[in-house]
Amino acid sequence: MEPDRAAVAAVLDQVRAGGRTALTAPEGKRIADAYGIATPAEGLAADVDEAVALADRIGGEVVLKVVSPDILHKSEAGGVVTGLRTAAQVRAAFHRICENARAYAPQARIEGIQVQQMLPPGQEVIVGAVTDPTFGKVVAFGLGGVLVEVIRDVTFRLAPVTADEALAMLDSVKAAEVLRGVRGAPPVDRWALAEQLRRVSRLVSDFPEIAEVDLNPVIATPEGAVAADIRVILDDHQPPPRPRFTREEILASMDRLMKPRSVAVIGASNEDGKIGNSVMKNLVNGGFAGDILPVNPKADDILGRKAYRSVLDVPGEVDVAVFAIPARLVARALREVGRKGIPNAVLIPSGFAETGEQALQDEVTAIAREYGIRLLGPNIYGYYSTWQDLCATFCTPYDVKGGVALTSQSGGIGMAILGFARTTGTGVSAIVGLGNKSDLDEDDLLTYFGEDPHTECVAMHLEDLKDGRAFVAAARATVPKKPVVVLKAGRTSAGARAAGSHTGALAGDDKVYDDILRQAGVIRAPGLRDMLEYARALPVLPTPKGDNVVIITGAGGSGVLLSDACADNGLDLMEIPPDLDAAFRAFIPPFGAAGNPIDITGGEPPATYEATIRLGLEDPRIHALVLGYWHTIVTPPMVFAEVTARVVAQARAKGIEKPVVASLAGDTEVEAAAAYLFDHGVVAYPYTTEAPVAALGAKYRWARAAGLLPTPSAH
Amino acid sequence: MEPDRAAVAAVLDQVRAGGRTALTAPEGKRIADAYGIATPAEGLAADVDEAVALADRIGGEVVLKVVSPDILHKSEAGGVVTGLRTAAQVRAAFHRICENARAYAPQARIEGIQVQQMLPPGQEVIVGAVTDPTFGKVVAFGLGGVLVEVIRDVTFRLAPVTADEALAMLDSVKAAEVLRGVRGAPPVDRWALAEQLRRVSRLVSDFPEIAEVDLNPVIATPEGAVAADIRVILDDHQPPPRPRFTREEILASMDRLMKPRSVAVIGASNEDGKIGNSVMKNLVNGGFAGDILPVNPKADDILGRKAYRSVLDVPGEVDVAVFAIPARLVARALREVGRKGIPNAVLIPSGFAETGEQALQDEVTAIAREYGIRLLGPNIYGYYSTWQDLCATFCTPYDVKGGVALTSQSGGIGMAILGFARTTGTGVSAIVGLGNKSDLDEDDLLTYFGEDPHTECVAMHLEDLKDGRAFVAAARATVPKKPVVVLKAGRTSAGARAAGSHTGALAGDDKVYDDILRQAGVIRAPGLRDMLEYARALPVLPTPKGDNVVIITGAGGSGVLLSDACADNGLDLMEIPPDLDAAFRAFIPPFGAAGNPIDITGGEPPATYEATIRLGLEDPRIHALVLGYWHTIVTPPMVFAEVTARVVAQARAKGIEKPVVASLAGDTEVEAAAAYLFDHGVVAYPYTTEAPVAALGAKYRWARAAGLLPTPSAH
Repeated sequence: MEPDRAAVAAVLDQVRAGGRTALTAPEGKRIADAYGIATPAEGLAADVDEAVALADRIGGEVVLKVVSPDILHKSEAGGVVTGLRTAAQVRAAFHRICENARAYAPQARIEGIQVQQMLPPGQEVIVGAVTDPTFGKVVAFGLGGVLVEVIRDVTFRLAPVTADEALAMLDSVKAAEVLRGVRGAPPVDRWALAEQLRRVSRLVSDFPEIAEVDLNPVIATPEGAVAADIRVILDDHQPPPRPRFTREEILASMDRLMKPRSVAVIGASNEDGKIGNSVMKNLVNGGFAGDILPVNPKADDILGRKAYRSVLDVPGEVDVAVFAIPARLVARALREVGRKGIPNAVLIPSGFAETGEQALQDEVTAIAREYGIRLLGPNIYGYYSTWQDLCATFCTPYDVKGGVALTSQSGGIGMAILGFARTTGTGVSAIVGLGNKSDLDEDDLLTYFGEDPHTECVAMHLEDLKDGRAFVAAARATVPKKPVVVLKAGRTSAGARAAGSHTGALAGDDKVYDDILRQAGVIRAPGLRDMLEYARALPVLPTPKGDNVVIITGAGGSGVLLSDACADNGLDLMEIPPDLDAAFRAFIPPFGAAGNPIDITGGEPPATYEATIRLGLEDPRIHALVLGYWHTIVTPPMVFAEVTARVVAQARAKGIEKPVVASLAGDTEVEAAAAYLFDHGVVAYPYTTEAPVAALGAKYRWARAAGLLPTPSAH
Repeated sequence: MEPDRAAVAAVLDQVRAGGRTALTAPEGKRIADAYGIATPAEGLAADVDEAVALADRIGGEVVLKVVSPDILHKSEAGGVVTGLRTAAQVRAAFHRICENARAYAPQARIEGIQVQQMLPPGQEVIVGAVTDPTFGKVVAFGLGGVLVEVIRDVTFRLAPVTADEALAMLDSVKAAEVLRGVRGAPPVDRWALAEQLRRVSRLVSDFPEIAEVDLNPVIATPEGAVAADIRVILDDHQPPPRPRFTREEILASMDRLMKPRSVAVIGASNEDGKIGNSVMKNLVNGGFAGDILPVNPKADDILGRKAYRSVLDVPGEVDVAVFAIPARLVARALREVGRKGIPNAVLIPSGFAETGEQALQDEVTAIAREYGIRLLGPNIYGYYSTWQDLCATFCTPYDVKGGVALTSQSGGIGMAILGFARTTGTGVSAIVGLGNKSDLDEDDLLTYFGEDPHTECVAMHLEDLKDGRAFVAAARATVPKKPVVVLKAGRTSAGARAAGSHTGALAGDDKVYDDILRQAGVIRAPGLRDMLEYARALPVLPTPKGDNVVIITGAGGSGVLLSDACADNGLDLMEIPPDLDAAFRAFIPPFGAAGNPIDITGGEPPATYEATIRLGLEDPRIHALVLGYWHTIVTPPMVFAEVTARVVAQARAKGIEKPVVASLAGDTEVEAAAAYLFDHGVVAYPYTTEAPVAALGAKYRWARAAGLLPTPSAH
């Protein structure tokens, strides 16, 4: 059925006219009916014959309830009789209720007797919708009773949901099995339940003024799903719409920001220790090939380059103006940037919203809007665009070009990104500080990096999202092409409190973030180090083409721990078919362990590693390899690394691209061996069995989200 | 009441006499009665008057059931009537059942009618006991229905449990809140429930032949806890008792192993690449000050030392014989070691149980027992006793003396321990390989390291425990003195399968391990790298004296992530009292964030870090500090490190010992700064907010387990 929007609008008007925000039960029922949300069948009977006719039409057991504006406590008045099956029972109950009501309140106006379907016993579930400060309308599903209240077993999605998304929600709670029938109970009607979710999600999407809907409980049975109770809350205060840019507008301005031909530095300085000096030095020393244009009202030249009194004096087009002046001077200079027609301003200075100067930030944002300038910052370290040799920051240059774009809301985390990248030699396409996000934010960057051919993976640290829906849209457009890793800080209530005091941003409930980021196909990093490791590893790993993971290990002990890690990361250890088992056995000692892990045993020469790894790469049934190396005199670390790199390169030359990760157990020589392997396309770590498998797990999670792998049944 | 053991013994004899292993319901009931395990009141009525009298005695609602060996399906026969309250109802039901039974099966012998108490509605829980292959009798508790079957919300303890342990079990399930009353339900009688657990645990402890007990469900109400059904399974096959040594015997032989005056090397060799050559070199180059005695039937001297044809030719006492000969030669040489009266044999060779040669290993073990030799291994890299400059391995010497003793079941993991320790400069008291554990195992080592004054922390990698109870006893004796960290490999079913194929050891269910290791006060490391980091950090950190953790950070972004990590690790962020807040505020900019984290803001000079850290150390209400450093020009990494180390040292000089951990965000210079801090008693890591807080969390978990802190209410 098509929803009856007019009927809902009429109810909402009536509620507003009454100055209320909460709907009555009959109003809720009318809304449910208008959207085809199943509730118990019911009707109002004026006399006993009408009651009998209604009960007959409803079928099954019914309950009779007195309807009177003068009787609030129906049960206390003897005004409710349940479990009525026959016409005679309905007749008797009708008369009894009328008598009881008269006895209880002789003056009461009795408007009639409500005849309502009695719901059969079934699985109680909760279907609801709320308005999240970050994501707007979200629909919620949980199993009723203890599971949702004590275990908090609930899942969220952006509203509206499709029928498929609604069905997937049923499988997203921990106790999902319950709906399929446990302890001899029959499975519930999943379609009917999904339909309740879909309709509720459409209702709140069609009527933004509906802040909350609660169907609690919904009784799910093999025959259907009926909401025993519906609660609707209105809130007419809608957040003001955020300025939105089209995808083309975002790409056009971001392209000039990330690939500028000319950069002006407002507040460029010759004085050591000044930010305007560091930015100039980094632009120059970083090797930027475009024009570097220092602006300083008091200097003739900066670092040997002609300086301009004002950006208005600069000849020709300028793509980016980097601000390195105190906060209080920004507004004035930004107007000049606007008049000059510069499309991007990078606001390094702090002293805005983060120090309580919200008004100053608002003023600057308004100027930017007036002139059509996009703002990065304020309160940031700047940004790197590595393939342009562009280092517009007050940190130090970074020149290892590669495939990962990293962004951070916090400056401290940006510095950690830089240090980690440098020490590991991580190949980077960009590092961008977002700071107060007065304008440009994660969705703009994601939109750009999604299209940027240099970028193979995007990793973002964030504490909040200004516009969760725009981010989800950007993520959905990007994920089919490349992995998006998110470190969402402020996960826990303690953390969220800290986020509040840091940025003044309202941090959402982490469960909502978690479900919706996953729905958008984002890989969530559990911590800072994980984000950094994923960022380093994901561009190195080829995309797996199937679920079959095989562990080949020289150390049985590593094999056990690598198996643990595979299970932790939802990876499937392949059941090795007999012919493949025999093929592996041909290379390993008779006491080596069969199956998976394949334990080639310690003390084997390089040839054993080589033969088994080659077999693992060349057999098309295997999709990914996890290697466990054990340092021995027979196969020293660097020998293992060279052999492995060579076999992998040979396979790639034949067109065989499979992800290979390695855990190296041994003395300190394994560190150089791991670095060598990483440089040769094998994600390898010393002294850990967890990190290599976590990287592989992240790649698999992305491949699944991107639709490149079949969805597994059990994870 | 005291349990009636004779009554149980009589039932078990009867079951055995019948050749059965499962008890009937009446037999289960008799056992329950003998141990005071509450079950529904019941009795057998021969006639209607007896039934009425029984119902009257039981009180409340009763159910009547026909008892006939010829009627298996009582309900089908109309032989069950429920919900009887009055004498008249009981009478009517009695007659109805008799009529129905006669109609259903005219020839049936009717032995009487069972009159049974009907249990009131309540919370269904499960109380049980099983025989775990590692830990023996364990008692289990879970919430009934979906929670235990779908969510697997269950907890285990070693049987028998005390009343306090039983009460603690009720709080150890995820949905523990349910028992305290949720959704308007009243709380259940916790004491009655705990008493069921205690009695079941005592029953299986008293009668080892009871393999399994299931009370499922137990109906828990505010008035009590009654088992609706009891199931008992026997297994008369008891595992053979393991040879046990007294604590004094273990300490005496371990003392000679770890602090030997003389070490013989069986199979010492002059030939490069031979294990007997590596071991000799490592003993010599490691600087061992005792006698090094090479044994080789074909050499006169090894590495310039006089060699002996047989260990029997060595003059004087020998404490340890290290074996570096092929497996097939071990038995013969071991007899000579026995005849020489050497108390310890270190069996490096592989080729025993791990390659299927179980018989060879059994032979060697039997010889050791015959001569009273304790065996380490076989199939190990050897062992290090750092404070003795003893390196009896085929690896390379390690000489950084310190507080952590590390052991590993696997050789590969042992090599990872060595490499990690060397690269981080971890101070080590011992590294010991356990391999096949034919004799010495984790409990022997734990007993020794618990007493060893050099050892401040014990970290163990293990795949199985030969004797879980001996390990728990050793852990309980050690934990009050020093932390015990365990990496239990084979956590998951996939991992356990790999363990099975690696060692042939039967790996237990991980949930049992997890609960019982926690019960023993052990800190479980989630992965290899975590074990290594805990091992490095725990001896460095002083023990906290209370729960109040304070974060001081220069980077707001780090503060949020550090807060997340505190919540993840069950650490309490202190609510800062107003006077302390004011004291901190005096040192930080006006826009710095109050509360906890204390955000001193970026760009502050060393003096701000110094003043706030000093205040954090000196205020007695604060018990631990988590520092977030942000690399700036104003406070470079090494300056921060030196300032922090100095303030911490000054506090220690005044007797203030508090754990301090730090996360360093910055360019690569933070690596040296972190290493410097670690050397000066501050557990510091670059590029991660998780690792420092995880180390502090591990120290807190130990302090709680050791009874040095109040047990928190919420974690």
